[in-house]
Amino acid sequence: MQPALERMISLGEKSPFYQLLGMKIEEVRESYARLSIEIDEKHIQLLGTVHGGVMASLADSAAAWAIYGSSDFKGVPVTVEMKINFLKPVKSGRLVAEGRNIHRGSKIFVSDVEVKNCEGDLVAKGLLTYYLVEDK
Amino acid sequence: MQPALERMISLGEKSPFYQLLGMKIEEVRESYARLSIEIDEKHIQLLGTVHGGVMASLADSAAAWAIYGSSDFKGVPVTVEMKINFLKPVKSGRLVAEGRNIHRGSKIFVSDVEVKNCEGDLVAKGLLTYYLVEDK
Amino acid sequence: MQPALERMISLGEKSPFYQLLGMKIEEVRESYARLSIEIDEKHIQLLGTVHGGVMASLADSAAAWAIYGSSDFKGVPVTVEMKINFLKPVKSGRLVAEGRNIHRGSKIFVSDVEVKNCEGDLVAKGLLTYYLVEDK
Amino acid sequence: MQPALERMISLGEKSPFYQLLGMKIEEVRESYARLSIEIDEKHIQLLGTVHGGVMASLADSAAAWAIYGSSDFKGVPVTVEMKINFLKPVKSGRLVAEGRNIHRGSKIFVSDVEVKNCEGDLVAKGLLTYYLVEDK
Repeated sequence: MQPALERMISLGEKSPFYQLLGMKIEEVRESYARLSIEIDEKHIQLLGTVHGGVMASLADSAAAWAIYGSSDFKGVPVTVEMKINFLKPVKSGRLVAEGRNIHRGSKIFVSDVEVKNCEGDLVAKGLLTYYLVEDK
Repeated sequence: MQPALERMISLGEKSPFYQLLGMKIEEVRESYARLSIEIDEKHIQLLGTVHGGVMASLADSAAAWAIYGSSDFKGVPVTVEMKINFLKPVKSGRLVAEGRNIHRGSKIFVSDVEVKNCEGDLVAKGLLTYYLVEDK
Repeated sequence: MQPALERMISLGEKSPFYQLLGMKIEEVRESYARLSIEIDEKHIQLLGTVHGGVMASLADSAAAWAIYGSSDFKGVPVTVEMKINFLKPVKSGRLVAEGRNIHRGSKIFVSDVEVKNCEGDLVAKGLLTYYLVEDK
Repeated sequence: MQPALERMISLGEKSPFYQLLGMKIEEVRESYARLSIEIDEKHIQLLGTVHGGVMASLADSAAAWAIYGSSDFKGVPVTVEMKINFLKPVKSGRLVAEGRNIHRGSKIFVSDVEVKNCEGDLVAKGLLTYYLVEDK
């Protein structure tokens, strides 16, 4: 891994929102990223299950890191839009999201995300669009 | 407002994830809900702006409460999927999301959401699908 | 309306796919467009209702023309992605789609679309993203 | 393949909208379907490329047939919503869409679709939600 990417990952994990949700960046490699959250009381909503926003946060993050992991990527991927299907409610255990960068245009990048629970069941599936903002 | 709905709102706001993000349910009426978050350091990610997951959490919540607010709604709206466009980065101030229930089928409900910053600019727009789970 | 836009509209309506589906461009003005299709046997699929692709075609077109109608728009809006909810089956009559351009970035444009049947019922709702390709 | 499914496929291909666009159902098996369109002048829009509605029609159809192909599926899959990213413009050749049913709930089904051009490049990617209407 490039030192610049390693630094970014470290900064990402230490950023306040990652700390708030407990998001861990487990792996970033070519066009791929894996992130996780250990589910805790704090992620739970009214109905006793994990709030959809937790899965959306994890999905957006995994999709973005898969783009950072692209060898020829220079700049910052800004989320244009996210579409996510919630397939199964989650109550506890560990959520793992795998992002894959499936398209690189000159400015538009698209990633696919799978979120699984600790039994390996697919609990959410996402398709997200990013816009490249170049480093100044 | 019906007492049952008032109780639900109170339970919703006290739920752990609402507390974690600081989500407030400001208004729920016929097919409409308004929620807000006062942006704080904790919502910020790597790039110094509010994480997309914060806006997604707020959007999903506003869209769901707009369905709870439908006079003829009995049961629990489970999020099938969310699509959200992020239009402007947000760094501080108050985020307000307005959800509107635009379709009620026998089982499928659809809501539209607008998220605005403290200057009233549209910063995100969502379109979400819910499935009715009936109370037992 | 600018002569350049009028020419575009005329070319659009004469293009093969518009002719194939019978899409009419009824109105294009500032950030708004209205298109229609008179439903016919040819739009019908296996189940006896209009194929979702007909509504998707109309929605994408209305959303794009709403961008062409923006006074400060120069270039060509290329569809990045489309999200459309199908709310009611349609069997006959006229479908009318109204596109509204709700966001203009430097490169990214977002439009909202409502499709109604001849009774004025909302039958589909879309949220679409475009990328500006500049004229050479 | 079950005779009932074979009959459905034959009826599907003969339906007016499939004939209009030239959609062929090439393969339907367990949770999978492959459909194609031979691109022709009639699919072209103003900019000289295939209209997004053509790809959306093919994606929706492939996603739905992947559900019909599920061994335990009884009934009719009605499209709740479609999200599709357009990755590359297409001018000619054959479009092939592969639909995969990735989730089966009691009422909600989700399919993933990849559309490729004749060189095998991914030109569109979709994620679609269906609702099961039971046979009477």
